Order: sequence, then C-alpha cells, then structure tokens
Amino acid sequence: MTETTAGTTAGTTAADLFARHRERLDAAVAACASREYFSAFDESPSPRVYGEGAAAAGKAAFEAWLGGAFPLETPGAEGRVATERSPYGFDLEVSYPRVADVDALLSAARAGMRQWRDAGPDGRTGVCLEIFSQLHARIFELAGAVQHTSGQAFVMAFQAGGAHALDRALEAIAYAWTEMTRVPGTAVWEKPGRGEPLRMEKTFTVVPRGVALVIGCHTFPTWNSWPGLFASLVTGNPVVVKPHPGAVLPLAITVQVCRDVLAAAGFDPDLVTLAAEDPADRLAAALAVRPEVRLVDFTGGNAFGDWLEANARQAVVFTEKAGVNTVVLDSTSDFAAMCQNLAFSFSLYSGQMCTAPQNVYVPAAGMATDEGVKTPDEVAAGIGAALDRLLGDDARAVELLGGVVDEGVLARLEKASSGHVLVASRTVAHPAYDDATVRTPTLVGLTADDSDVYESECFGPVAYLIETAGTDQSIDLFRDTVIAHGAMTASVYSTSTAVVEQMREAALDAGVALSENLLGGVFVNQSAAFSDFHGTGANPAATASYTDGAYVASRFRFVQSRRHV
Amino acid sequence: MTETTAGTTAGTTAADLFARHRERLDAAVAACASREYFSAFDESPSPRVYGEGAAAAGKAAFEAWLGGAFPLETPGAEGRVATERSPYGFDLEVSYPRVADVDALLSAARAGMRQWRDAGPDGRTGVCLEIFSQLHARIFELAGAVQHTSGQAFVMAFQAGGAHALDRALEAIAYAWTEMTRVPGTAVWEKPGRGEPLRMEKTFTVVPRGVALVIGCHTFPTWNSWPGLFASLVTGNPVVVKPHPGAVLPLAITVQVCRDVLAAAGFDPDLVTLAAEDPADRLAAALAVRPEVRLVDFTGGNAFGDWLEANARQAVVFTEKAGVNTVVLDSTSDFAAMCQNLAFSFSLYSGQMCTAPQNVYVPAAGMATDEGVKTPDEVAAGIGAALDRLLGDDARAVELLGGVVDEGVLARLEKASSGHVLVASRTVAHPAYDDATVRTPTLVGLTADDSDVYESECFGPVAYLIETAGTDQSIDLFRDTVIAHGAMTASVYSTSTAVVEQMREAALDAGVALSENLLGGVFVNQSAAFSDFHGTGANPAATASYTDGAYVASRFRFVQSRRHV
Repeated sequence: MTETTAGTTAGTTAADLFARHRERLDAAVAACASREYFSAFDESPSPRVYGEGAAAAGKAAFEAWLGGAFPLETPGAEGRVATERSPYGFDLEVSYPRVADVDALLSAARAGMRQWRDAGPDGRTGVCLEIFSQLHARIFELAGAVQHTSGQAFVMAFQAGGAHALDRALEAIAYAWTEMTRVPGTAVWEKPGRGEPLRMEKTFTVVPRGVALVIGCHTFPTWNSWPGLFASLVTGNPVVVKPHPGAVLPLAITVQVCRDVLAAAGFDPDLVTLAAEDPADRLAAALAVRPEVRLVDFTGGNAFGDWLEANARQAVVFTEKAGVNTVVLDSTSDFAAMCQNLAFSFSLYSGQMCTAPQNVYVPAAGMATDEGVKTPDEVAAGIGAALDRLLGDDARAVELLGGVVDEGVLARLEKASSGHVLVASRTVAHPAYDDATVRTPTLVGLTADDSDVYESECFGPVAYLIETAGTDQSIDLFRDTVIAHGAMTASVYSTSTAVVEQMREAALDAGVALSENLLGGVFVNQSAAFSDFHGTGANPAATASYTDGAYVASRFRFVQSRRHV
Repeated sequence: MTETTAGTTAGTTAADLFARHRERLDAAVAACASREYFSAFDESPSPRVYGEGAAAAGKAAFEAWLGGAFPLETPGAEGRVATERSPYGFDLEVSYPRVADVDALLSAARAGMRQWRDAGPDGRTGVCLEIFSQLHARIFELAGAVQHTSGQAFVMAFQAGGAHALDRALEAIAYAWTEMTRVPGTAVWEKPGRGEPLRMEKTFTVVPRGVALVIGCHTFPTWNSWPGLFASLVTGNPVVVKPHPGAVLPLAITVQVCRDVLAAAGFDPDLVTLAAEDPADRLAAALAVRPEVRLVDFTGGNAFGDWLEANARQAVVFTEKAGVNTVVLDSTSDFAAMCQNLAFSFSLYSGQMCTAPQNVYVPAAGMATDEGVKTPDEVAAGIGAALDRLLGDDARAVELLGGVVDEGVLARLEKASSGHVLVASRTVAHPAYDDATVRTPTLVGLTADDSDVYESECFGPVAYLIETAGTDQSIDLFRDTVIAHGAMTASVYSTSTAVVEQMREAALDAGVALSENLLGGVFVNQSAAFSDFHGTGANPAATASYTDGAYVASRFRFVQSRRHV
C-alpha cells in the first residue's frame, strides 16, 4: 500500500481529518492550476506496490458480497432488489434496499444538512478526503465490483474504476475547496470618510443548494459518478446516489464508505444514500423533478439526458451524453505506430467508452505515410493487422477488450456488421469465464455521403473508416458533425503544420478536445485528471467538464451578514 | 479627474491596453479576494475631485443628445424609435436605430467572434478595461442620462449609475479574468514510466459560448447591465444590449464607447450592439430564444424573468427579479438612529430599489429601546418623524427621492394608501422641474394575518409595518416568506445576541444577505462592490450574484489540444 489509512474512529473531528489530509489537498490544488502530471495513488495493481495479499484480499471482499444482502440503511426503502449480471456471464445476486418512498428518502437526506453546512469548507473537505482515502483502502474490492458490473477487464477496472476515478474525485474536491475558500470567512471593510471611517465586519457563509442527485451509468460506475458526488457533497449538499441497475455494487460500496465516515465524524449518515431500484421503477425520473433536488449529475444516453435538461428545471443539471468522436487522417510519419495506436483505442474496453473514436475520415485518394501513400483499403488493412497483433491471442485479448456490457451493444455490432466490413469483429473465448461475452472491434467502410450512419453514436466495438474528397472535407465534416451532434474527443494525424493548425481551429469552433499525432503510449480515449479536461460543455455531448470552475461554482452560494464594529 | 485617459488611437493593441490597465486589474482582483474596501474612482461629483468644468461639460454632453438621432450603426435596423420620458417631466426625444431583422443582427454579432476569441484573456481584458476607463471619462454625461431615464436624483445617478456601477463592472471583469487565467495557456505534462517518461505539451484555449443578450431595466440601466455585459464580453462573447425602452440613452452611450474602443483596437465593433425597440416589438423575447443566443442577463419583473428561465433553454440565464425585503425589529440601543436609518432606506430613490426594505416586522407588544418600550404605533411615529426631518424641505427632499419611474409605481402607491396608513405619502414639488413626479414613502400598518398583502413585492415608496406575536414569529415569517418569494436584502435590529444569532440562522436558511443593527451611514439597500455580494442565487429573487465564481465560470469553456514533445 502506498498509504496507510489511520481510519476514522468516533471522536475524530472534521478538523482533525482536514489536518490529516491537508498535504494531499494542497498538492491537488497545485496540480489543477499547473495542469502538470499528478496522481494521488499508484495505478499499478502490482504486489510490489500494494503488497502481496492485497489483490487476493480485495477479490475475497468482492466475492463475499455475491448472493447476499448488501447492508445499507436506506430511508424510504421497502423490500430489496437484485439487478446485476456480470458481462463475464453470471448474476451477482447482491440485493439492495429498494426505494419506495421518495418523500421519506428526501426528508432524511435533508435532515443533516444544516450541521453539514456548519462544518464549513475545511471541515467538509476533511471528511470528503477521509472518504476518498478509505475508498482507496478498498480499491481491489472496488475493482472487482467495477469489473463484474461494467465488464471492464480487471486491470482497467483497477485503473479507470479505481486509481483514475479517485484522481477525478480528488480533482473535484480540490476545485470545490478552492472555489469555496476564494472568499474569506470574515473580512473587515473600512470605507474612508470625511470624519471617522465606516467600519463593518462581514461574515461569508457557504450555503448548499439542496439535495444533489447523482445518476450513475453502467460502464463507468465510479469514474463518472464520483466527481459529481464529491463536488456536491463537499459544497454542503446531501447526495442521493441512483446507480444504474446493472452497476450498483461499486456505488453501494461507495455509499457505505461515505456513511461510515460521516457517522464516525459525527454527521448524519443519511447525507449520502443509495437509491437502488428495479428498472421499471423509473426512480431517476421521479427524483429528478422533486423540488428538494437542486443538483443533478447524469452520465448516459441522449434520450434521458435531454429529458433531464428539459424537465429538471428546478435543478442545475450536469450531463454527459453521447457524441461522435472523430479521427482525421491526413498524413503520418509512422504508419505502423498510427495503426497500432488506433487499434488500441478501438479495442480498449471494446470501444464502450464515451471517449472511444468512431468516425475515421481519410481521403479517398489515400494518405501520405512513411511507407508511401496508403489508400483507404490499405489503412484498413494496417489497422486490421494491428488489431490482429493486439487481439490475436484470446487470453491477452480479453485483458484489453473486457466484456460486452449489454444486449444493445451486441445488437448495434450485429447491425454494423451487415455493412461494408473492412475488418470483421470476432467472438473471443474467455479462458476463465465460459459465459463471458467478448467481441473484437469491427471497422466498417463508409463514404462522406453516409451521414445518416456516421452522424450518430454507435456505442460499442464499431468504428467507421469514411472516405472523403480530401482533408479539407474531412475537417469540414468533423466540424459540422460535432457542432450538431457533439463529441468527447477528436484526433488528427498529419505531418503538415498547416493541417494541424486547421484542425485545431476546427476543434475550437466545435468545442472539442483535440489530440495530435498520437503514436506512442497515450490514447485519445484517455484523459488524465488534473491536466486534461474531460468534456468541454461547449458541444452537445456534455454540459459539464471534469473539472473546471463551472463544474463546482454553482453547487453552492455565498450568503453574508454584516455589522458595524 | 482622478485619472486621465490616454484614449485609444488606432494601432493601440489589446496587449498595450492590458499593460496600461494592469495595475487597476491587480488591485481589483486583490479586493475580490480580501473583500476589503476598494473603489476604482471617487464617488463624489465635487469639482474638487473632478475639476471645475467637468459637471457642466457632462451636463452639456447629455443635453446635446436630446431631440436628436443617436449615432449608432446597428445591423438589422430599420427606421428609428424614441421612447424615453424623464420622470422629471419631459420627453427625451432621442431616437435610436430600431432593430427589425434579428437574423442580420445576430449574424453581424457573430462575425467578429473568432478574432475576439483569439485575442485571449489578457487581450480582451485590456480592451474591456479601456472601455471601462472611457466610460468613466463620460461619467457626468452618463449621470445625466441615468437621472433623466430612471428618475434617480443627480448625485445618486452619479454614484449608483456611475462610480458604483463602474465598480460592479470592474468586479465582473476581475472575476472573469481570474477564472480564465486559473488554467495556463500551455503546460507540459510528464508522466513517469518504466523507461522514458510520457511527455505531452497541452494548449488550453478559452472559447466563448455564443451571443450574449443583456436585457436592461428602467431603474438601474447601468448598474444592473454592466456586470453581465462585461462578464460576457471579456470571456469572448459578442453582446447584444436590449435596453428598457424607458432607459435607452445610458446604454446607447455605453454601446458607443464599446464599439469605438473595439474598432480602435482592431476588432469588429459589432461585437457590441444596441437592440432598441418599440415596446410592442417584444424584441427581448424574440432574441432570448434564438439558438445563437447562449447567455442571457436579465433584471426586471417576475413575469418575464420566469418566462426567460422557462423558455430560453438553449442559454444560461442569469436573472434578478422581485423579492420581499425584510426588517425584523426586536430591540435597539438607539431608537432615533434606527428610525433615521430606516427612513433613509425607505426614501432613497423613493424605494424604487430591488434592495429597498418593504416588510418591517415588530412585536405587537412593542420593542425595547433606549427610550423605553415602543409600541408599533410609536415605532411608526418615530419613522414618520425621521421622514419629516429628511424630507420636510422640498428642495432637499427631491435630492434624496428622485422621480417616480413609471405609472405602475404611482398605481401601487395609490392602492397601498387606501390601507391603514401610519405615515402618509405626500407629493413633493420639484424646485427645478415643474412636471416632475415626486412622492415621499408611505408606511402602512398590517398584521401577521395579512400575508396576501406582504408576501408580494410592492415596488416603490411603500413599506409595511407588520405586527407579530413576537420576534420568534417575526423571524419565522421572514424565513418562510423569503424561501417562498425571495428577497435581495434583510435586516435586523436587536440588542440580544441570541436574537441576532437566530436571525443569522434564518437568513442562511432563506439564502439572503443580512445587515445587523444599521444605525449609522450604511443602509440596507446599499451593497459595496468587491465586498458585498448583491443577490445570492439562493432564493427565488435571483439566480445570480454580483459577483461570484458562478456568475462568470459558465460564460466560457476551456478547449484543449495536446501533442507529444
């Protein structure tokens, strides 16, 4: 373990916790400002880092939940639900309290709000950093839970679902703390006058907005939920966590840790609750429009995201929805490395990432490379060969691909495979899980005329190689498609400074982050906390960014009082 | 003059302007953080401060506009409108281009957007600070324009409409600059690895949201419009200024200065336009729902404010609407000073301030004072006597009261005067303007049962003295009324620490700023830029606060690009 957690024993105050974690906070705040490399924890699950027994203990802790009743007190719950199935081919059969009485849930959530507000920015930050630290202490257990709900391979679940998710959580806490402490708790104001100056003492208090609703997704239950959870909680808001019915356990563990730490520090544990449901309950929709709910964080599909933006009018709504991520191929100094990099991006978690590339534009006449001009078919062949190298061995392939998260992904893959297939998807047998659903990505050939296909997201292991009249058209299509339909990422390969500049300009117009000539160990679908913004809020794919000032500033308000001194 | 403005000659770059105004920016940024006293300019219109000829020259400049065609090029305009009448009894007869073609207006507004974005945070801040500086050079002219549109008395128009409005503008610029520069323009990210570290250079660009619409109000055309105008412009957005038809000239002068400075610095002047209209045009509603419009700042009544929040869904909407400002009287150490302070707050600009107190709760059994227990009738008599002292002399009274801004105020005053009048309003003759409409405030007696009356705003010179069962009920009524109906200010008079604490707690619950025991030269309706937040966004009266991070952070987005180095 890189850190030992002292744990929170009853009697530990919020101020104690703030002091305990101050150094980490300061480092995170500094990294947010410098955008240089920073990470709170080692991303490697190696025994050299975490100790010999850590992985086995975490696996055992995860497995101990299976088939049992997860112990959580949930106000307003009646009965239990078990809704999760591992993409590796088995039901988790963990049951959770099922929320039946929304009034009771929200009333309980609000009960501890005033005391939490009165803990102040430092106190709340101390408690949140202790939660953060205790989540890290359970990182192997969480990785198991993420793996067997999302279908991510274990190492990815450990990294994206564990270490990197923790970094995004810490980033949100650091941004929120900075925002809350930009204004002092008290100030003396002295206005010069003809006689005595006017002197006033002023008190500034951070007040929360109200109940925050965090709606989790199936593919990244921790990475996409923790930023909103911590941003809302640390600014004083009670948080109701509504997990995706297919990925409850990672958030149940999260809520358990939150409640334990809150209670040990003397706060009402109902400040954080888990709102598990049967999918038919439509609980998220019911909660989102309640007047008590003043903040909503959502990751998921366009239909419900758009509905939330249109209907949860009493709340500030942060959404991350679908987009059409784009690669523009113009020319490259290293064709093999380019193919390798793209193949990895398509394969990682079977393309089930909101950041995975989908639309690859290439001139019909081909692209200049260090191996001569490559036609679209030769580009496809290059990518196909790279995919074979990456995924040729089933045992290695599953560690990159993970499992297919749901039937919808399979249906889309099947439909896409009826097109002009340049690289076919294949079914991979998992050496450890007979019933796992594992697929390699397909690459489908299109032309610029096929906008009805490539202008919408095909979430899953499907990419399009789209022939255009040339790079100018590629860039125009990129700009227009992203402005209209959104994107989380964009990427360009070109040895021409002018083309890269043109693409940068288009990316600014479209409001999407751009990666240029990725030929090594960085992939377009990865964003590093504290340095890369995830989403921009500047195109239809997301109204939020992890993490900027806008993500935290409207989660609370300053309320002042003043008096003469 | 406290400053001489070098002026912007063609060839002056945005960088030059940033350097010229850097010191002022730094001072403003520091004041926002410390919340200590700061003001950019002297608030006194005295010749000792501004020079012997300044007032006369400004008056002449204002008068030169009367009866003429205000020279502004406005894309999409057709014909002209003249809609202003001074509350001092004459039509201004200034005509402005009338916007007829919204497509043309918005298209022109967007034309210079990319160049403005590329000027970067420092460049745009330099240009905005030059506009700011040149507005100050015209402060007497602006004061005349504010006086004869809003009806504010001259000194108030100079202060609230000039010096203090400039401070609120500078505050918005300082907050926005801080927010934009929290992230460096470029950073190098280096992730340690087993071999060579991964190194990437990252570029972070501030991109605007789109066209910003600023909808001005009749009573504070500059003070309430400049913060949104500057916050949006400095973050890269073109701004369409839609003035209230009754108060166009102050914003026409503003837009003229903006356009002149933009053009001189080499930018498209259409980045700031004036959208004047005949009231029947309903231009604000037409503009607010256009897809190009991504930011709306509004000050005004609940009906249109609520409509904007419900309908301008494509935009971030900042509103300041009506509220019910409250005073809780419990006890005081200086009855005379309390009555004097309240009388001044009721009288200033005839109560036509969104911050003026309206509901004064007092125990039916009376309040303890240094002059013994005072019954509600004795409190009313004390306030009445203070009003007489302040307003007994017509020539002095008009300098405090100013003129009545519109017929609606007179109608509300008349209706209120049919109630249980404790202090009657009287008509004041203006010594200089025979046709001026000037009224003193009325104080109307109510009981806690009259919630149908006191739970809505009666904008204008009307205050209610409301008898309650005691201070506990007063505080409960305060809390409940503000949570339901909003407020911009609250105030308490009590010699009891426990009562003041109780009131602070209620103010935090209700999300409204509290002033305690104001007995001297500070009044509840005044808020000082850089120190006092105006509005909280935490109750129904406003979704915005001048100025906090939330007011600026969502007006732009960070868009990044990254590449290996």
